[in-house]
Amino acid sequence: MSTPRPYDPFARDCPSRRLLDRIGDRWTVLLITTLEDGPRRFSELLRTVDGISQKMLTQTLRSLEADGLVLRTVHPEIPPRVEYELTELGRSLLEPLGALIGWATDHMGEVQTSRGAVSATA
Amino acid sequence: MSTPRPYDPFARDCPSRRLLDRIGDRWTVLLITTLEDGPRRFSELLRTVDGISQKMLTQTLRSLEADGLVLRTVHPEIPPRVEYELTELGRSLLEPLGALIGWATDHMGEVQTSRGAVSATA
Repeated sequence: MSTPRPYDPFARDCPSRRLLDRIGDRWTVLLITTLEDGPRRFSELLRTVDGISQKMLTQTLRSLEADGLVLRTVHPEIPPRVEYELTELGRSLLEPLGALIGWATDHMGEVQTSRGAVSATA
Repeated sequence: MSTPRPYDPFARDCPSRRLLDRIGDRWTVLLITTLEDGPRRFSELLRTVDGISQKMLTQTLRSLEADGLVLRTVHPEIPPRVEYELTELGRSLLEPLGALIGWATDHMGEVQTSRGAVSATA
């Protein structure tokens, strides 16, 4: 039996490239980070991730659920309470996504300086 | 004088949200990673990042250059040789982006298992 080929996002047909799209997506990054401190309701997520539409929030949560990153729980109350929380797999994304957000906020000033310099010489 | 407001990608109008889009983009992740070992020519980048179009490669390199992450150098030879390399700022992205790729390749199997379970119960 041959050893399975490792996943390689540099290859166009490797599924890890689509997974990279999913985890690098702005809404994924912001939602996973929002769920760090525990379960949240749909309306709380909508409020915390400023500017996400209801439709996009629904779609993103469904993808994250399908990928095993987020767990959706319906509490049998009247009216039913629906909560979203990170799975163990989702929790393992907190560190890399936190580093990404950290980079963006730490280096935003340098990037803006560079953009200004480029447009000044254009 | 008031303290400047820190950058916050959770706010819809903060420029750090667009920067997050840029650095989480699949082509950015793959190109920055490809440039880790030193300068590369356009044709080498096109070959390494399987499936990127010439147009998309041109556009992405221009954005990375404008953001100060990549330096484009034209060597005065005949024909002119053009090379792309990481700036110090671009180099500081290697660690977070490497962690992102590492996560995707390490956990691809678990994500696929989850997707299979979801479609089996759908």
